[in-house]
Amino acid sequence: MPCYPTDHAGLEILPFDVCLQLLAAVPVGRVSFLTDGEIMVLPVNHVVDGQDPVFRTARGSKLSAAEGQDLVAFEADGYDERTKSGWSVLVNGRAHAVYDEAEIQRLSRLGLHPWVTAVDRPFWIRIRPASISGRQTPGHL
Amino acid sequence: MPCYPTDHAGLEILPFDVCLQLLAAVPVGRVSFLTDGEIMVLPVNHVVDGQDPVFRTARGSKLSAAEGQDLVAFEADGYDERTKSGWSVLVNGRAHAVYDEAEIQRLSRLGLHPWVTAVDRPFWIRIRPASISGRQTPGHL
Repeated sequence: MPCYPTDHAGLEILPFDVCLQLLAAVPVGRVSFLTDGEIMVLPVNHVVDGQDPVFRTARGSKLSAAEGQDLVAFEADGYDERTKSGWSVLVNGRAHAVYDEAEIQRLSRLGLHPWVTAVDRPFWIRIRPASISGRQTPGHL
Repeated sequence: MPCYPTDHAGLEILPFDVCLQLLAAVPVGRVSFLTDGEIMVLPVNHVVDGQDPVFRTARGSKLSAAEGQDLVAFEADGYDERTKSGWSVLVNGRAHAVYDEAEIQRLSRLGLHPWVTAVDRPFWIRIRPASISGRQTPGHL
């Protein structure tokens, strides 16, 4: 079991490469941003392209309000209630809509299939990280 | 199976009482707030007191920065990867530190036991909701 340094809260600090692996290992993350004077936190199905979380949304949706925002967070986590342990990874960065057709074609081949299919989600958003950090309860991974 | 109205994204809109039940049914939620020019999203062990998510933290922690903020979100969700379905509940409101000794005693009896025990968390924070809303993939519950 790897041994990681702990922070002031007693949580282990995960290395960057482990953060990226964990982000990519779960099908659901949460996008958080400001809109209409409130903080939104919305679960999305995502994939990780390089270091960037990407997801699909409908144009005009609450989620599409993240487009172009400097202040966006993407969080993923996992926990085991039985062992009372878990991990979390937080990405802070900027959300960009993807308009380039070749890039959209490439992203479409990454295997992202949103669970809710009643509404078409042709609009791709990429979060370019300014920082990626992760923590876990001691000895979780 | 109850039948709920759907929003523009094809998600079912959960009634208020179902939102409260779901919030209280999971051991982990995520607190989101602004600090140092970034959006934080931090998982916490929580309980629900009336309609308020409450959690414990160490004084001076990242999480304690939520204290007194008007703009705080608390999110909980659950999903089943096998059935590709899930739910989420979002609380927007204001975070208050709890200083009243009788109230702290009462909260201490609600059965909240943070999973990370390396650091004492004597500091209680209550989120007073201004709004509570929830969504689920069609037919999840």
